[in-house]
Amino acid sequence: MSIAPRGTDLSAAQDRVQRGETTATALLAASLAAADAPANAHVYLRRFDAGARAAAAAADLQAAAGQPLPPLGGLAVSVKDLFDVAGAPTTAGSAAMADAPAAAADCPAVARLRAAGAALTGHTNLSEFAFSGVGLNPHHRTPANAATAALDPTPRVPGGSTSGGAVSVATGAAWAALGSDTGGSIRIPAALHGLVGFKSTQRLVPLDGAVPLSTTLDTACAITRSVRDAVRLHEVLASRRVLQMPREPSAWRFLVPTTLMLDALEPAVAAAFDGALRALRDAGACIVERPLPALAELATLNATGGFAAAESWAWHRQRLGTRGNQYDPRVALRIRRGEAIGAADYIDLLAARRRWIAKVEAEVQGFDALLAPTVPLLPPPIAPLLADDAAFFSVNALLLRNPSVVNFMDGCALSLPCHAAGDWPVGLMLFAPAMADDRLLAAAAFAESVLPAR
Amino acid sequence: MSIAPRGTDLSAAQDRVQRGETTATALLAASLAAADAPANAHVYLRRFDAGARAAAAAADLQAAAGQPLPPLGGLAVSVKDLFDVAGAPTTAGSAAMADAPAAAADCPAVARLRAAGAALTGHTNLSEFAFSGVGLNPHHRTPANAATAALDPTPRVPGGSTSGGAVSVATGAAWAALGSDTGGSIRIPAALHGLVGFKSTQRLVPLDGAVPLSTTLDTACAITRSVRDAVRLHEVLASRRVLQMPREPSAWRFLVPTTLMLDALEPAVAAAFDGALRALRDAGACIVERPLPALAELATLNATGGFAAAESWAWHRQRLGTRGNQYDPRVALRIRRGEAIGAADYIDLLAARRRWIAKVEAEVQGFDALLAPTVPLLPPPIAPLLADDAAFFSVNALLLRNPSVVNFMDGCALSLPCHAAGDWPVGLMLFAPAMADDRLLAAAAFAESVLPAR
Repeated sequence: MSIAPRGTDLSAAQDRVQRGETTATALLAASLAAADAPANAHVYLRRFDAGARAAAAAADLQAAAGQPLPPLGGLAVSVKDLFDVAGAPTTAGSAAMADAPAAAADCPAVARLRAAGAALTGHTNLSEFAFSGVGLNPHHRTPANAATAALDPTPRVPGGSTSGGAVSVATGAAWAALGSDTGGSIRIPAALHGLVGFKSTQRLVPLDGAVPLSTTLDTACAITRSVRDAVRLHEVLASRRVLQMPREPSAWRFLVPTTLMLDALEPAVAAAFDGALRALRDAGACIVERPLPALAELATLNATGGFAAAESWAWHRQRLGTRGNQYDPRVALRIRRGEAIGAADYIDLLAARRRWIAKVEAEVQGFDALLAPTVPLLPPPIAPLLADDAAFFSVNALLLRNPSVVNFMDGCALSLPCHAAGDWPVGLMLFAPAMADDRLLAAAAFAESVLPAR
Repeated sequence: MSIAPRGTDLSAAQDRVQRGETTATALLAASLAAADAPANAHVYLRRFDAGARAAAAAADLQAAAGQPLPPLGGLAVSVKDLFDVAGAPTTAGSAAMADAPAAAADCPAVARLRAAGAALTGHTNLSEFAFSGVGLNPHHRTPANAATAALDPTPRVPGGSTSGGAVSVATGAAWAALGSDTGGSIRIPAALHGLVGFKSTQRLVPLDGAVPLSTTLDTACAITRSVRDAVRLHEVLASRRVLQMPREPSAWRFLVPTTLMLDALEPAVAAAFDGALRALRDAGACIVERPLPALAELATLNATGGFAAAESWAWHRQRLGTRGNQYDPRVALRIRRGEAIGAADYIDLLAARRRWIAKVEAEVQGFDALLAPTVPLLPPPIAPLLADDAAFFSVNALLLRNPSVVNFMDGCALSLPCHAAGDWPVGLMLFAPAMADDRLLAAAAFAESVLPAR
């Protein structure tokens, strides 16, 4: 199992197919072969090989006829097992959904991928019901981190909840992975794999036909190998064009909030993050470091479980009543916290969130993006977290801490690898308020251009 | 106490001032004199006479200089005691708010009235916290229905919650009344007074600076004497222009839902409603009568108190804890229902409402508006409802039954008098889905033109 070499992203592959240097069919065969590797046994919960091959063959017909390829022309894209794909069940990685009927139609996000020419390779594994940032799944086993395998033989967590999606991209089984991000579920596994994870502003991509975790916070988005691929996937998923915003390096202005987000960093994460700031400053960017006191309020605001608890309880309470024994107990425990949340508490939380967002947006005006380590940890070993609930919940809270800030602020964020080639993967998170997606993507492209090669 | 003569609406009065036939100062003096009448002692909770006179004098200066008058040029408009007026406390008709500080600024709805030249006459009485359709207020007494006074000496209910606002318009103390409508609080008192009450689509008028009852359902809107005045007040409150849509009478197509909304009509209401349908048909309109089964689901959907209970509990729970003994017990009882509503119940209700709206909107496609009696009752006597909780709650439920359908559907509605001159007041409600306001106002203008003179 190896990380795809730098420079080979979906955009480059599509160019090669367009130019006739290879075929989508050949590239797909390589992706399917990677998926077949024994180490990838827990990545896919179901495969769509026949449909994927048809999409690749269709792209090749178009390329051979000199027609322009669609943006994802015949290339492998995996789908988290939360999103309806016509003809397949959606089981959210749960035994309690194992008998779900086949979906009658693609959900809108999947339909947009398919219309853009994606070869949809299969439904990927995830934290049950997308409920955790670690990526463990007791029903389907846990795909091990593919980025650390070459560095250390101990199986380490893939990050979650889009665990299988990240591994599919890291191992070449897919060029991009459709997933969801409620508190970091795209960005955490991207960071732990040295990949790019872009969480757009929630409202930009439809969520219909996806099993919800938190209807307030869920965002449909993708893991990719490069920022330009993130732009491409976002343009497809959001059915919009991203405005290109080139500018002089010295015109970028970033804020590093020193509240909360720099706490308890592992030394290797702190070093890589400091290196990233240095590289950005050396390139000419202005970086201000200062407290953002509002971040210290989040733990209190969400003390009873927040939107995820209240909204998942609303969706799950009937099923938990009849099939609760089929749930991962760690997932059921967190969903059941929602039972104690009153309507007034929920209404108060909605109002408190609006006030909090207004305060934060006022405080970060004038900055193009905020910067933080995506997660404070290197990928921890799997075994101790399987064995011990307290260790699991502690690591889970640490992994979610920084990314979930962005979901609460209704913002957008991109996790970008900032470690040097051969080092352990560390993610740099750029984030911004709602609807600043295009500027954030431009900032990420700038950062990618000045960070060390990986 | 007498109803203002037909034909004298705000639009006509403003025209007369503009033409120099009278002055805003003279008209305001008459309005203030009407407010001073002993029978109106319970209409205003506080008066803004000095500010109102200044607004009238300013309008007269403009008219004398040949300048165009603003839309409400110097004429009396009353304000429900829910809306912040700079320099005055807002007490929501409650003893528990009696020591509220003076508002630092006008709320946006009031600011728009003031900018449009309104002479703001005072804060009007209401059902405490706007919580009932009857209009009783144990703290400030209940203004008696001004429309029935000439027909019958028994004091009858004014309708609520905009009780004082309706009486102010009916007695000439104001040309229009700013109020709120959460389940009928504009349309019920308008119907019981033979006035026009227009509830716009909620999102069109800002609610900031108004004491909330249900943030999901509350709408800021006005009681007027004519449909053209309703258009004028809406244009000011929503800061938008209503699209004029004249059409041939035979091009109007109305639906009378026979589910729920025709149940338990008092004979006089049934007769007036049938007469209105006949007049519309005689004028050429097409009227279809058929069941709308979705309406039968509302009682179940809202069985635990619905949005008003959950959202008012969120707003009131702290105050109820410290000052609950100062609340009208009938109001406190209904707010406290929200304590038992869980976040998941509330989330389910939001989702159920979206599904219900989609279903209803699909069923009513092709109709310009739906028609129903605004309320099934003539104004009942006050005394028995003061004496008996069960009688009060029964009448309250009947008064709210039809209007509240529109709030739940996020729609717009106008209550139009449809009784003959000298008869007891009966309201015809025209209603339509969200954002169909301009077509609804055009339909109401058509209906007003063919209904009996009043």
